[in-house]
Amino acid sequence: MFVSLEPCSHHGRTPPCVDAIIAAGVGRVVVGIGDPDPRVSGKGLDTLRAADIQVTVSPSDEEARSVDPSYFRHRETGLPTVVLKYAMTLDGSVAAADGSSRWISGEESRADSHRLRARMDAVVVGAGTLRADDPLLDARIDEAGRQPRPIVIAGSEPLPGSARIWERHPLVISAIDIPIPAGDLAVVASRDGLPEPVSAARAIADSGYYDLLLEGGPLLAAAWWHAGLVSSGVVYLAGKIGGGKGVSPLGGLFPNVDDAKSVRIIAVIQIGNDVRIEFE
Amino acid sequence: MFVSLEPCSHHGRTPPCVDAIIAAGVGRVVVGIGDPDPRVSGKGLDTLRAADIQVTVSPSDEEARSVDPSYFRHRETGLPTVVLKYAMTLDGSVAAADGSSRWISGEESRADSHRLRARMDAVVVGAGTLRADDPLLDARIDEAGRQPRPIVIAGSEPLPGSARIWERHPLVISAIDIPIPAGDLAVVASRDGLPEPVSAARAIADSGYYDLLLEGGPLLAAAWWHAGLVSSGVVYLAGKIGGGKGVSPLGGLFPNVDDAKSVRIIAVIQIGNDVRIEFE
Repeated sequence: MFVSLEPCSHHGRTPPCVDAIIAAGVGRVVVGIGDPDPRVSGKGLDTLRAADIQVTVSPSDEEARSVDPSYFRHRETGLPTVVLKYAMTLDGSVAAADGSSRWISGEESRADSHRLRARMDAVVVGAGTLRADDPLLDARIDEAGRQPRPIVIAGSEPLPGSARIWERHPLVISAIDIPIPAGDLAVVASRDGLPEPVSAARAIADSGYYDLLLEGGPLLAAAWWHAGLVSSGVVYLAGKIGGGKGVSPLGGLFPNVDDAKSVRIIAVIQIGNDVRIEFE
Repeated sequence: MFVSLEPCSHHGRTPPCVDAIIAAGVGRVVVGIGDPDPRVSGKGLDTLRAADIQVTVSPSDEEARSVDPSYFRHRETGLPTVVLKYAMTLDGSVAAADGSSRWISGEESRADSHRLRARMDAVVVGAGTLRADDPLLDARIDEAGRQPRPIVIAGSEPLPGSARIWERHPLVISAIDIPIPAGDLAVVASRDGLPEPVSAARAIADSGYYDLLLEGGPLLAAAWWHAGLVSSGVVYLAGKIGGGKGVSPLGGLFPNVDDAKSVRIIAVIQIGNDVRIEFE
């Protein structure tokens, strides 16, 4: 039997895999990588060996790790993998000065961003975006499939009770116990009355969401960026010029040019009349 | 004899071409396109025909026009061809909030932007950029060649007498008669004390500079953009995140998303860890 990850030896969402392997009479198991989950971590292999099954572990774990890098990231750091996403004019605005932003990017980019959502465990927005855009945060793609969980990072004010998001049973992260019409609430450590970014991200991952798409708004994006939570990003650069100052993708200040952080541009493609840039 | 442009029949920087053609005893001249310059416009062809030279004009002038599109643009509209250029972080800043901008883009992009300058007749900046960056506006490339003329659009305050630009004998465009240490001064129509954009552009083209690289700053870029003077643009998008609000490529406001103008993205390439986007 060839498996990428060490078979588990504990009762999680499913019974132990090792019991099923032993019962099936498998003679040899080749494992890509050991499971960093402390409930498994070597115990799976030990159980197989104790049942006289020959066990071989790959000397190189990179390929096995690449099957689900976010799983390893979470088990090793407790943190989710966060992809920052925004759509911006060619002159750097994610919204006009009045906050309007529909539609900066073209139809093809928007379709692409729904495919991006479909690959994620959850889509994260701040309360400001919830109020301004009333989004559903679902993946509108043809193929039926698992939808990302909507996650709202609550501010200090009550969330709008009539928002469409409640239909989708969001996970709400708040620094205080607040009433929500539907979904789940996780209360985490506070920083100035708002959920402290690392605590918020950790709470989301602990709820089982490892791959997050961070869609803004700018203040949330900046808070998570400066907390070092952003693993990579997708920028849709629209073939449009706003012609003046609008809203920047990240809120707060960019004080001095030396404060800029280098990222690695890993993919650039044209989508319709937009450009999609991936960085990490 | 095959020529792309109708041979001239007037004394400009050189004597009439038609006289030389007639004197050389050429029997037939095939012309790509008639010269829109009112001093020529058909008179060149007429002179050749009057000298019993057989003249054929191409039925399709597109290829001949593409040899020097800016010449035709100027002769037909009186305006230069303006390429807007800026280097911006992935989150939309051409400079940090304190105005610092060295170096947002990488070394390869900067080398590319010098090659871009080398293809231009002139490089245009505002007085603010002159004060902030003290630029030379030259093309620092290995191949020796004609350098673009530096052009400064003056504001209402005196220009710094110690700026390095004076070494390069700039053309200064001003709405008032101001003393300059070196170079040439053209006084044009005023709008709020600043050179009115179309008059400024026309004066530059009338001085023989048809291909201009507009390098900012943001207020000048916005004024020329909103005056409809920008024909195309080159954006160097750096593999950097400023992490907050800095300086936008265009000054003034982007009031509402409907005020954004669509441009066509015509080329996208990765240069080092930056992305170069051309639009028109």
